[in-house]
Amino acid sequence: MENKKLRIAITQGDTNGVGYEMIFKTFGKPEMLELCTPIVYGSPKVAAYHHNALGIDANFTIIHSAQEAKDGKLNLLAVNDDDVKVELGQPTPESGAAGVKAMERAVSEAKDQLFDALVCLPLSKENAQLDGYAFPGFHSYVEQCMGDGKKVMPVYVNERTRVALATEDVPLKDVAQYITSSLIVDKCMELNQTLHADFRISAPRIAILALDPADEQMQQAAEKNIIPEAVQKLEEKQVLAFGPYQSEQIFGSTDYMHFDAILALYNDQGKAPMKALCPDYTVDFLGGMPMVITSPDVTPQFHIAGKNQADETPLTQAVYLALDATRNRRNYNEPYANPLQKLYHEHRDESDKTRFNVPKKDAANKKAAPADKKAAPADKNVQAQQG
Amino acid sequence: MENKKLRIAITQGDTNGVGYEMIFKTFGKPEMLELCTPIVYGSPKVAAYHHNALGIDANFTIIHSAQEAKDGKLNLLAVNDDDVKVELGQPTPESGAAGVKAMERAVSEAKDQLFDALVCLPLSKENAQLDGYAFPGFHSYVEQCMGDGKKVMPVYVNERTRVALATEDVPLKDVAQYITSSLIVDKCMELNQTLHADFRISAPRIAILALDPADEQMQQAAEKNIIPEAVQKLEEKQVLAFGPYQSEQIFGSTDYMHFDAILALYNDQGKAPMKALCPDYTVDFLGGMPMVITSPDVTPQFHIAGKNQADETPLTQAVYLALDATRNRRNYNEPYANPLQKLYHEHRDESDKTRFNVPKKDAANKKAAPADKKAAPADKNVQAQQG
Repeated sequence: MENKKLRIAITQGDTNGVGYEMIFKTFGKPEMLELCTPIVYGSPKVAAYHHNALGIDANFTIIHSAQEAKDGKLNLLAVNDDDVKVELGQPTPESGAAGVKAMERAVSEAKDQLFDALVCLPLSKENAQLDGYAFPGFHSYVEQCMGDGKKVMPVYVNERTRVALATEDVPLKDVAQYITSSLIVDKCMELNQTLHADFRISAPRIAILALDPADEQMQQAAEKNIIPEAVQKLEEKQVLAFGPYQSEQIFGSTDYMHFDAILALYNDQGKAPMKALCPDYTVDFLGGMPMVITSPDVTPQFHIAGKNQADETPLTQAVYLALDATRNRRNYNEPYANPLQKLYHEHRDESDKTRFNVPKKDAANKKAAPADKKAAPADKNVQAQQG
Repeated sequence: MENKKLRIAITQGDTNGVGYEMIFKTFGKPEMLELCTPIVYGSPKVAAYHHNALGIDANFTIIHSAQEAKDGKLNLLAVNDDDVKVELGQPTPESGAAGVKAMERAVSEAKDQLFDALVCLPLSKENAQLDGYAFPGFHSYVEQCMGDGKKVMPVYVNERTRVALATEDVPLKDVAQYITSSLIVDKCMELNQTLHADFRISAPRIAILALDPADEQMQQAAEKNIIPEAVQKLEEKQVLAFGPYQSEQIFGSTDYMHFDAILALYNDQGKAPMKALCPDYTVDFLGGMPMVITSPDVTPQFHIAGKNQADETPLTQAVYLALDATRNRRNYNEPYANPLQKLYHEHRDESDKTRFNVPKKDAANKKAAPADKKAAPADKNVQAQQG
């Protein structure tokens, strides 16, 4: 598996945006085709249109099923033969639908493992409505189609930091009422798992941001009860979560560097400062699904569509991250796939076992809960040193 | 006035924090004493304690009234002779009260114009409670004491951008209901005036941020009605306000550079990304008051008090900004102080006047309102080019 090139499916996104421009520019670099085998889920006619409009060098090979994809080529899988009218820079129902159809096909073929990871180019949600079908947004769509009951765990990643959001698709006025201790615990657990498996961080440290500014006598339940309670529960589960911290303090100093990820409570609190730190690119990484999925965290940028002004860095980085995370996850899962049967050597000296069992038994009889609680921080320290 | 050194009053802030360390380090540079004459409103005993604890070079001259202040010296005005117990790094009611007392004295002497500008070192609000008096927070305190009915207009300033907040001291859950068209208009008008007078920007451009993330089908009244309506009203008042914009878009690209200031709707939306852009310092500038007031936008940093680890840059920059803004404002006000009487030369050819009057009269008779509306954008363009 290690020596085989990974196959990356790429969905075309909104066909009137800059998707194809980013694809052509990214895979115009020969080293990218050395790294992986791209399979673009799209339309040859649309690709040709963008190619001509942009006037840039681009070679692509048209295929009709993912199995036909060839290494060293930019494979373009014709999702369907419908004529899609391209109106550069104009979000139309047609361009949105073409984007969704490409995702539909890619997502269904992901289940058949016709490729190793999925990179999705941006759609405009308002615009991505099929006949009678309201596109629920990128994250929800992926969760519905691939989650099989599991939750998607989006992590925004750039060169400086990783940010996850406790609430998405929630209007600001309702954010406060969504913030509960169990939400924070769930999000941190999922984030912790993704950092473990997909980013291969052995003991991830997570910072949780505060809901309200400090020093304002207005800090409410979130800072005083909800977040401290969540931090304590997470400590019991051996997840290294800390906080609450002020967003301006974490991002306005080098404090963010002390953490492997930051859990912001809502969009602007986390994504605005993380993008200020690194304006070059942010990748939207979707953990928690059976396959690694990434997306350049940009809009379809209709205002510069067809003008050869789009920056391909976000897509290039999304591909890099998809490759890294796919390998990381396999590495992580490998030891669990075919475990050796446990062998018990009866002739071993049991004195150690007996010695360590004593306090546990004792504790269980006398005061089970406090002893358990004490165990967690001790383990945590060991993990923190390893990490 | 131009040749006289400006006198800057500096209030000591919380006496158990890093205030004195920042003062000693800032005015330890000889060039700072060339630029202005500092008058620290504080306590000689506390200053001596910090001086010894830090073990850094510092010379200060004790005075008992602002009139005694000498150029070229770090003047320390003994606010009162009470013994203040210093407990480095411990916020105590005593240290908070000492900070407030220094502000009380400085604010009252500001009215007598014993100095030209005021720089306030940080207080911890929780801690700054005098007997029976609840300190309402720095901005509210200044407004109450100096505003004379006028509103304070805080602008956060660093090397990269300027940010004002539509709401402060409002819990996040209530922010949405505070955002009204008239609030946005008022804030932009005040901000515009401060940018004009104190920053000497002839036609300031203001970006207004959106309440909710874009592309989420959840944009509410703020984006659809309130902000567009405010922008239109401001246009009629010839204030160049634009928006709503996404915070992550404005700060996550070079877009913020196109504006002279950004109006964020609440704290974390504006201050977290602006501090991520420039972590070195942010100055809290208070416009709208009869005197220029600034403050380094930091906490008292109790955790490093007395350890010689504090960075003085925020105070140095707060002093620079106080000096610049004071000169700017005088410059701005000067032409209005003694205006020449208008002289009408009757012998002048009136044909132009007649010619230009014709369409106006016509418009006034026929369709007054649309003509007025049209006039505004035209003026705006001219202003924009000048600016």
